[in-house]
Amino acid sequence: MAGGGPGAFIGPVHRMAAELDGKIRLVAGAFSRDPAKSAAAGRAWGLADDRAYPDVAAMIAAEAARPDGAELLAVVTPNHLHFEAAAAALKAGLHVMSDKPATLSLAEARELAGIVRGSGRLYGLTYVYTGYPMVREAREIVRRGDLGAVRKIVVEYSQGWLSEPIERSGNPQAAWRADPARAGAGGCIGDIGVHAFNIAEFVGGARVERLCADVAAVAPGRTLDDDCNVLLRFEGGARGVLIASQISAGARNGLRINVYGEKGGLGWSHERPNELTVDWLEGPSQTLHAGSPYLGAAARGATRLPTGHPEGFIEAFANLYGDFADAIAQGRANADMVPDINDGLRGMAFVETAVAASRDERGWVALEGEAACVR
Amino acid sequence: MAGGGPGAFIGPVHRMAAELDGKIRLVAGAFSRDPAKSAAAGRAWGLADDRAYPDVAAMIAAEAARPDGAELLAVVTPNHLHFEAAAAALKAGLHVMSDKPATLSLAEARELAGIVRGSGRLYGLTYVYTGYPMVREAREIVRRGDLGAVRKIVVEYSQGWLSEPIERSGNPQAAWRADPARAGAGGCIGDIGVHAFNIAEFVGGARVERLCADVAAVAPGRTLDDDCNVLLRFEGGARGVLIASQISAGARNGLRINVYGEKGGLGWSHERPNELTVDWLEGPSQTLHAGSPYLGAAARGATRLPTGHPEGFIEAFANLYGDFADAIAQGRANADMVPDINDGLRGMAFVETAVAASRDERGWVALEGEAACVR
Amino acid sequence: MAGGGPGAFIGPVHRMAAELDGKIRLVAGAFSRDPAKSAAAGRAWGLADDRAYPDVAAMIAAEAARPDGAELLAVVTPNHLHFEAAAAALKAGLHVMSDKPATLSLAEARELAGIVRGSGRLYGLTYVYTGYPMVREAREIVRRGDLGAVRKIVVEYSQGWLSEPIERSGNPQAAWRADPARAGAGGCIGDIGVHAFNIAEFVGGARVERLCADVAAVAPGRTLDDDCNVLLRFEGGARGVLIASQISAGARNGLRINVYGEKGGLGWSHERPNELTVDWLEGPSQTLHAGSPYLGAAARGATRLPTGHPEGFIEAFANLYGDFADAIAQGRANADMVPDINDGLRGMAFVETAVAASRDERGWVALEGEAACVR
Amino acid sequence: MAGGGPGAFIGPVHRMAAELDGKIRLVAGAFSRDPAKSAAAGRAWGLADDRAYPDVAAMIAAEAARPDGAELLAVVTPNHLHFEAAAAALKAGLHVMSDKPATLSLAEARELAGIVRGSGRLYGLTYVYTGYPMVREAREIVRRGDLGAVRKIVVEYSQGWLSEPIERSGNPQAAWRADPARAGAGGCIGDIGVHAFNIAEFVGGARVERLCADVAAVAPGRTLDDDCNVLLRFEGGARGVLIASQISAGARNGLRINVYGEKGGLGWSHERPNELTVDWLEGPSQTLHAGSPYLGAAARGATRLPTGHPEGFIEAFANLYGDFADAIAQGRANADMVPDINDGLRGMAFVETAVAASRDERGWVALEGEAACVR
Repeated sequence: MAGGGPGAFIGPVHRMAAELDGKIRLVAGAFSRDPAKSAAAGRAWGLADDRAYPDVAAMIAAEAARPDGAELLAVVTPNHLHFEAAAAALKAGLHVMSDKPATLSLAEARELAGIVRGSGRLYGLTYVYTGYPMVREAREIVRRGDLGAVRKIVVEYSQGWLSEPIERSGNPQAAWRADPARAGAGGCIGDIGVHAFNIAEFVGGARVERLCADVAAVAPGRTLDDDCNVLLRFEGGARGVLIASQISAGARNGLRINVYGEKGGLGWSHERPNELTVDWLEGPSQTLHAGSPYLGAAARGATRLPTGHPEGFIEAFANLYGDFADAIAQGRANADMVPDINDGLRGMAFVETAVAASRDERGWVALEGEAACVR
Repeated sequence: MAGGGPGAFIGPVHRMAAELDGKIRLVAGAFSRDPAKSAAAGRAWGLADDRAYPDVAAMIAAEAARPDGAELLAVVTPNHLHFEAAAAALKAGLHVMSDKPATLSLAEARELAGIVRGSGRLYGLTYVYTGYPMVREAREIVRRGDLGAVRKIVVEYSQGWLSEPIERSGNPQAAWRADPARAGAGGCIGDIGVHAFNIAEFVGGARVERLCADVAAVAPGRTLDDDCNVLLRFEGGARGVLIASQISAGARNGLRINVYGEKGGLGWSHERPNELTVDWLEGPSQTLHAGSPYLGAAARGATRLPTGHPEGFIEAFANLYGDFADAIAQGRANADMVPDINDGLRGMAFVETAVAASRDERGWVALEGEAACVR
Repeated sequence: MAGGGPGAFIGPVHRMAAELDGKIRLVAGAFSRDPAKSAAAGRAWGLADDRAYPDVAAMIAAEAARPDGAELLAVVTPNHLHFEAAAAALKAGLHVMSDKPATLSLAEARELAGIVRGSGRLYGLTYVYTGYPMVREAREIVRRGDLGAVRKIVVEYSQGWLSEPIERSGNPQAAWRADPARAGAGGCIGDIGVHAFNIAEFVGGARVERLCADVAAVAPGRTLDDDCNVLLRFEGGARGVLIASQISAGARNGLRINVYGEKGGLGWSHERPNELTVDWLEGPSQTLHAGSPYLGAAARGATRLPTGHPEGFIEAFANLYGDFADAIAQGRANADMVPDINDGLRGMAFVETAVAASRDERGWVALEGEAACVR
Repeated sequence: MAGGGPGAFIGPVHRMAAELDGKIRLVAGAFSRDPAKSAAAGRAWGLADDRAYPDVAAMIAAEAARPDGAELLAVVTPNHLHFEAAAAALKAGLHVMSDKPATLSLAEARELAGIVRGSGRLYGLTYVYTGYPMVREAREIVRRGDLGAVRKIVVEYSQGWLSEPIERSGNPQAAWRADPARAGAGGCIGDIGVHAFNIAEFVGGARVERLCADVAAVAPGRTLDDDCNVLLRFEGGARGVLIASQISAGARNGLRINVYGEKGGLGWSHERPNELTVDWLEGPSQTLHAGSPYLGAAARGATRLPTGHPEGFIEAFANLYGDFADAIAQGRANADMVPDINDGLRGMAFVETAVAASRDERGWVALEGEAACVR
């Protein structure tokens, strides 16, 4: 693991998720550049002292030299360190599971894509919401054509925790997210807007071709955006709206998506992740429950418990790790359901395109096609 | 009443709502241009035969001549007949309660505004959602400053009943709504988009100054729009998103609004109209229930039953009629909580501005200020 | 109307409900024993002065003598006056719609049943919850056998407004309900327990045969019960639980019912009255929405608005009045969907049986069959 | 681990939960009496071959003899094997975390209680619902007196998966639960009724003193109960209702609890585990969200993620294991928040008392006080 030291939020999630199904074990980490802190983190997680490193490069070198060295690097640092860690690991023959967004910039993402393609190794990206069973069911319903052609997608991801400029009063999670040098061109849009964008393409099954964005920094003194509202046009003609905000005071982690087709619409909300509602043009509405035998294969394979036993964020995360571990074990070239570098490229293109177009009030702009990402 | 004959939806609602609180009685109507149909409708509602007219003008003349003639005309026809009926009634000294939108076009609305101002009579517009007690409570919370300055408003009004081009297979409700000659420049945006627009200004307390719209006709062969997505900027700087659709298959009559301020956000959904949720940046979320003694005066005055006894659409409608009747009885110049011709002007300006700007992909455009409508 | 003067809750509801669909008009009332109060109430509702009476008997006599006299008496007094008003009206040839419970005691109810049967007039009882469209749909689902044989019914009606002994501090609604002379043997059980009992039999389609009750007075100094928990056995073998409470602090008017059969279960809650959920042993859950074309005839006939337009308590009440008016107009011997004296008898038997059995901790006791009430 | 071999449900949950927070590692197991199956299970979870045993006694002996032997035994077998495994482990100096119920019978539980007390080791019982953060918050709210004195508790645990006698068609989970030799005197009541009973005492803070039970076997040919409805009286005078069912067709795993005090009531439902609602006699309702800083210490210590990131069943289970591991590490005599043998005794007393009293229709009976279990 690269990153994840004291005070981190997402590092421990990666650790729990990776180990949940018994397919992966944390064996080494460069948790912090401070040797003492890295060692302390390692000890807290039961690692031998010699496998808590102060430096990612040193870790990769040392682990590559061990017969029992790590095979997979989890990249859980702030954004500006993603590229370097992922590139080094891939070059050393490790697979990589990276937190999102892929890199600090689209240029870096393109460079990383070349490295991934040349590496013969797997690269996964933890757009975690794709790991929820009912999100996978939603995608399957759309692909199966149950709704008819998709006409409209509304995706909203509202948080309120950055309503005040807490990056200036010492909140470490806020500090790096509000700093262009560490976060990149996007603030909210890079932090959570990319999740909304990814899930819209993942569930809707079509790529965004054009967009018209209103990306703003609302909290006093903030440089990067904290509120984004984007009109979308998908290939095939569907329209969409993407809302992402970190100044929607009172909102917690409110991601929801609605997809409307010719015959009906489906809705999923992260606050009730184990349910999926489908409303039909004709006939009663349906609620599908995770863990039920009537679900499709993708959803059935993504639960551990009988219906009615809630699974959540860690389990969704674990689904990505589990799929990834299976693909590695089977020597496959990719892990079907796990977002990859193509999703990473699209996310970075979305961030940079929307931010630039909004700044200049350019109205509708094209989103350049970066690789074929829709599975 | 002008309109509301056999097969109508909104006419009977006006009748039930107007009479609910015992302040108004239906005494006459021009329910249909077919004399037999108008008479039949009148009989069904207990009117004397001589007060069911085949023609609005004839009704106005005859009622004005009676000592016990009607004092108030409810206009419930399709849009293209609103102006004529309202104008005639006002000129004859009747008060007018009109269904929305005010008129067929902005030009007509401006002319009507002049007539209203010169008439000395009251003109109300049944933007019915402003009649719900918890919408009024929401407005009061915003005005009181409980949320701090408003930063963002998301309003969505999704229906699915026009997913297919049912206007071509004889559905009378769909037929006039899809016909520019009877509906005006806007389809969905004029039918329900104006409701969303009105409630956003009513609750948010600020006027929309600029907008960027994507207004489309999605169902095959349809002329007028059936799907609208609009980015908004309010005076004072708040941002907004307005979504209105009649091709969101499976959606019923899904109006909801979220207003986010510096300290918290509130949410109201028409599917659970008797609740209002408020989520705070700090502290537990709250749910306010209609009929509770802790509510503000506006909400308390808009329920008839103790908390836990659901009231709905007819009661909200009746609240507008009740306020209007009180204002008439008290000889006041306007009925505080009832939308009026200024709201009508703004709605028409919104429709025409958004439709034109979207057609040309003009990006952000100004919404000309039509009178001061925000109370 | 008998009762319903100043300060009353249910009287105005009867007035609004009776008139909502234009089939019935309030023409006379004995709203209060104080002539001035009765006259004031009459004037507020637009009655001629000579039709606001200070006395029920006088009203019945005077109205019976008029060619345009009232045909139907609504009884909306406290319980102890139900019998006298209903009996007098029936004897004078009026139909009667009475608020529940039927009478002060089971003995009175039996006497009234005899009068009803001999009168040739219709007697209806406003167990209002049977008027909700989705309650009628629930009943139809059960009757159609969709769930298979019914095995279990859980019905709960929780309120909190009598958590404190407010009957001693001047609350008039509480005062008569807490007084055995005006309320009868049951407090909470007679006020809302009978609703729960009635809806269980109405939806479940089987009569309660045995019960085991825990009926208690919880608030300090209260004589009549305010909390009731009852185990039930239905004919045919289904089990049930009935919970009714007026000291469940924080509860508003929380009636809900769940019926479980061999193949699935349905659930309805008064807080979301326009929805009915059905969960199946196999396959996705369903949510049925009022106003939808796929509903059965009973539910379709009980809405005025398209789906997604909430109707509530007043409309449910109006459904009973509308059905009753139709039955009268058509000269039918009963109004199919309207609870009648047999339901009244069963309700009174339930109250008296449960109160007595609980007081003596008698465990399971039989509920004597009073007429055949299940339609 | 004792039990948990192929096809088991709860064994894998114990493994995931125990390891989630990195405080415990699975090092050995007697997963099945079939040596090949036990070895296969061990290998699947990464154990060395010599630590997958075919026999609990052999495992305990071997592990006790190793310097790196297991310190804690997780007992996840069917009920009839709980006593033997737990007793052997305690006698060998291991701590024990047992699935519920504690034993096959109350007599066994009493014997086990003696062994626990004499062992100097910790004994925990996975009444998992006490591990949910919002259940702990509920308990804290009650203890703090926010609701005033508790007056009523309604607890319901409804499942539908045993609606048909699937124990006869080879379902292994159903087979042992329906078999008195392996499940004990209670079917549904022992399987999930004890959870409901435990959470009622845990949250409500008072012991059940008397009960009146209707415990029935509903599905054709079933010996043990599958539907239980119980009236309760708590020490201090509160009343209660406990509903547990496995033939409520369509129900998934629907545990919910409502506690009503003098000033308000709280409600928690397992289908939305990260929320807790509190409705007040006066003032707006509140919804508390897991992960929020305003929660009490018990709830704050039981989440791993910021608010809005759902945690579920595995995490609740992990909270019990985490608390237990901390208590062991700190040498404490008990793990405060983890149910223990006293809860086990009360659960077994509840099962046997309710089953016997219901069989004879004895009405109200006392529930003998087994140790002081309420913390």
